[in-house]
Amino acid sequence: MTNAFEFNITATDGAARRGTLKTAHGEIRTPAFMPVGTAATVKGMTPEAVRETGADILLGNTYHLMLRPGSERVRRLGGLHKFMNWERPILTDSGGFQVMSLNELRKIDENGVTFKSHIDGQRFELTPERSMQIQNDLDATITMAFDECTPYPATEEVAASSMRRSMRWAERSREAYEQRAGYGLFGIVQGSTYEDLRLESIAALTGIGFEGYAVGGLAVGEGQAEMFRTLEFTTPALPQDKPRYLMGVGKPDDLVGGVMRGIDMFDCVLPTRSGRNAQGFTRYGTVNIRNARHADDPRPLDERCACPACRNYSRGYLHHLFKAKEMLGSMLLTWHNLHYYQEVMAGMRGAIEDGRLADFALDFFAMQAQGDIEPV
Amino acid sequence: MTNAFEFNITATDGAARRGTLKTAHGEIRTPAFMPVGTAATVKGMTPEAVRETGADILLGNTYHLMLRPGSERVRRLGGLHKFMNWERPILTDSGGFQVMSLNELRKIDENGVTFKSHIDGQRFELTPERSMQIQNDLDATITMAFDECTPYPATEEVAASSMRRSMRWAERSREAYEQRAGYGLFGIVQGSTYEDLRLESIAALTGIGFEGYAVGGLAVGEGQAEMFRTLEFTTPALPQDKPRYLMGVGKPDDLVGGVMRGIDMFDCVLPTRSGRNAQGFTRYGTVNIRNARHADDPRPLDERCACPACRNYSRGYLHHLFKAKEMLGSMLLTWHNLHYYQEVMAGMRGAIEDGRLADFALDFFAMQAQGDIEPV
Ligand SMILES: [Zn+2]
Ligand SMILES: [Zn+2]
Repeated sequence: MTNAFEFNITATDGAARRGTLKTAHGEIRTPAFMPVGTAATVKGMTPEAVRETGADILLGNTYHLMLRPGSERVRRLGGLHKFMNWERPILTDSGGFQVMSLNELRKIDENGVTFKSHIDGQRFELTPERSMQIQNDLDATITMAFDECTPYPATEEVAASSMRRSMRWAERSREAYEQRAGYGLFGIVQGSTYEDLRLESIAALTGIGFEGYAVGGLAVGEGQAEMFRTLEFTTPALPQDKPRYLMGVGKPDDLVGGVMRGIDMFDCVLPTRSGRNAQGFTRYGTVNIRNARHADDPRPLDERCACPACRNYSRGYLHHLFKAKEMLGSMLLTWHNLHYYQEVMAGMRGAIEDGRLADFALDFFAMQAQGDIEPV
Repeated sequence: MTNAFEFNITATDGAARRGTLKTAHGEIRTPAFMPVGTAATVKGMTPEAVRETGADILLGNTYHLMLRPGSERVRRLGGLHKFMNWERPILTDSGGFQVMSLNELRKIDENGVTFKSHIDGQRFELTPERSMQIQNDLDATITMAFDECTPYPATEEVAASSMRRSMRWAERSREAYEQRAGYGLFGIVQGSTYEDLRLESIAALTGIGFEGYAVGGLAVGEGQAEMFRTLEFTTPALPQDKPRYLMGVGKPDDLVGGVMRGIDMFDCVLPTRSGRNAQGFTRYGTVNIRNARHADDPRPLDERCACPACRNYSRGYLHHLFKAKEMLGSMLLTWHNLHYYQEVMAGMRGAIEDGRLADFALDFFAMQAQGDIEPV
């Protein structure tokens, strides 16, 4: 076994691909969903529990980690894997997206972004070079190029100018990145919803060459239809033999639609954030467990789900935990949501292998449309 | 195997006893520490995790559960064990202690207490009969008699009057209690720190007859020395063949001192509440993990501890979790504290069996006095 960073596609079904990404920290089965561990923890979950849901890889946030506890500290404490007790692959974002969202607190120029910490107002600079250094300190298995997530909507001129700077930053990221066996750097396609800009961005990135390609600048308000339309002219232009990552997506139906349009990797805070807010994702759609209809319901959230929340507890109990503001409510519903997300991904992987992804999707949408079970 | 509620003492060492309490929900190894699951959950822990720490029995709070989710609802949902997924023994308090602490919101007379809910101001009444009904609804393995926890300090007249009413309530509790195989009712000794009152209380309770005897009205501000002095004339007067429970106690050294004075069972919110507040109990004393000295410390909280917090994480990581207000910090430190408490109890059980409890205590106090390891 070498420590090569290697992507093998073992089956396809339409545009969808079933693959395995080999890394220095283990294999990632694709299509893959990456739970978000913003501050070196998936909120409310132990790493063992995250792994039990079926996750092969986590996402960490450079912006949060550079501010607290600081990337140099994480390096001194053995890197992010050891720090947070997750020995499997970790992808870190570049910090760009979150820095750009600071609005009042940041200034962008050709060199990069200067910004003030939302924690204590301290001034920081983030550039392609600094982002690569931080992600190296963190020991990210997959490093993301530093880019600007073009806001939506954007005129073609604004989108072009933003994308082209991101491409210059991509080149600087590639140059600053320290290549190590089993580690990889992903470039990020920008260009808003404009086909010519997306193709120009892909040409620039493939000219530089990356171990994987992310589709950025989507799921920023354009809506699912427009996101899918953009994917439909973007993914066919991406290299066939490299993993493709749709950033910050999404709801369960976004995942199914993304996979059917050739995406291999996803990340989103939705299953964890919703779990903390009493919203459960199930095969029959979403359920707000705080709703009074659940108070006396002895049935599990989803009787077909094998997660601890559904195996061991009633809706009545979950409802009680949220009413009483008990941590265990967030813990259990987060667990359920991550379990469900991974179950959807595993279902798609199996369906691609069997060449029946279209049937899988039909079943999926039919069940989602059915809605939650009737009240007791 | 019958479902008898049966207490067997298998070894003694001085006043300390090593026993097993058999119940309808399984055995409790004594001396035992009972983690507190106030609102049908030990805060921040799954029941599986609580069990992994070594707990045989949990405590539930009648006051909290009667208000939310309501004892009738718990009964409809299968009882507290099923509701919270803890099939082992559960002891519930009578609600008295917490109702009396409401101060402004409650009124006490011979019949019982009327009070307003701290949640919504709704008016409730709690009497010996109602408390027995609620604890029956909850399906408590061990039910506590309804009593008044005499405030401290109290004049002998006040303490006597309060204790004698508690004895009348104990008789009403016994009468109202529905006896079931494998279930038990415990009487509560009151009398503040007055020997004659404690002995009078014990005489009253043993005259009625209970499956176990609790020492109430301690750990309410009298200090450890006075608590131990009170135990020294109280426990010798209790029946030898019944379990003895020191309510609401305590710090690790209180547990050791309590066992050496003939106590078999304890409960306290300290390990869970302190865990949520970044305070860890270790063999070398207490550690506030929020202290900046831990930020760069790669060592575990306690290198000799086998709990997940100590096996898998550095002090630096635990410190980070609390600084970042991440749930996992509370989860891990709660786990550690409960693990440590159970380890102390298991250590005492082994020491009693081997007749070396005095040596165990000497080691324990020497290590506690040593204090935390030096900063890195
Ligand atoms: Zn589930
Ligand atoms: Zn520990």
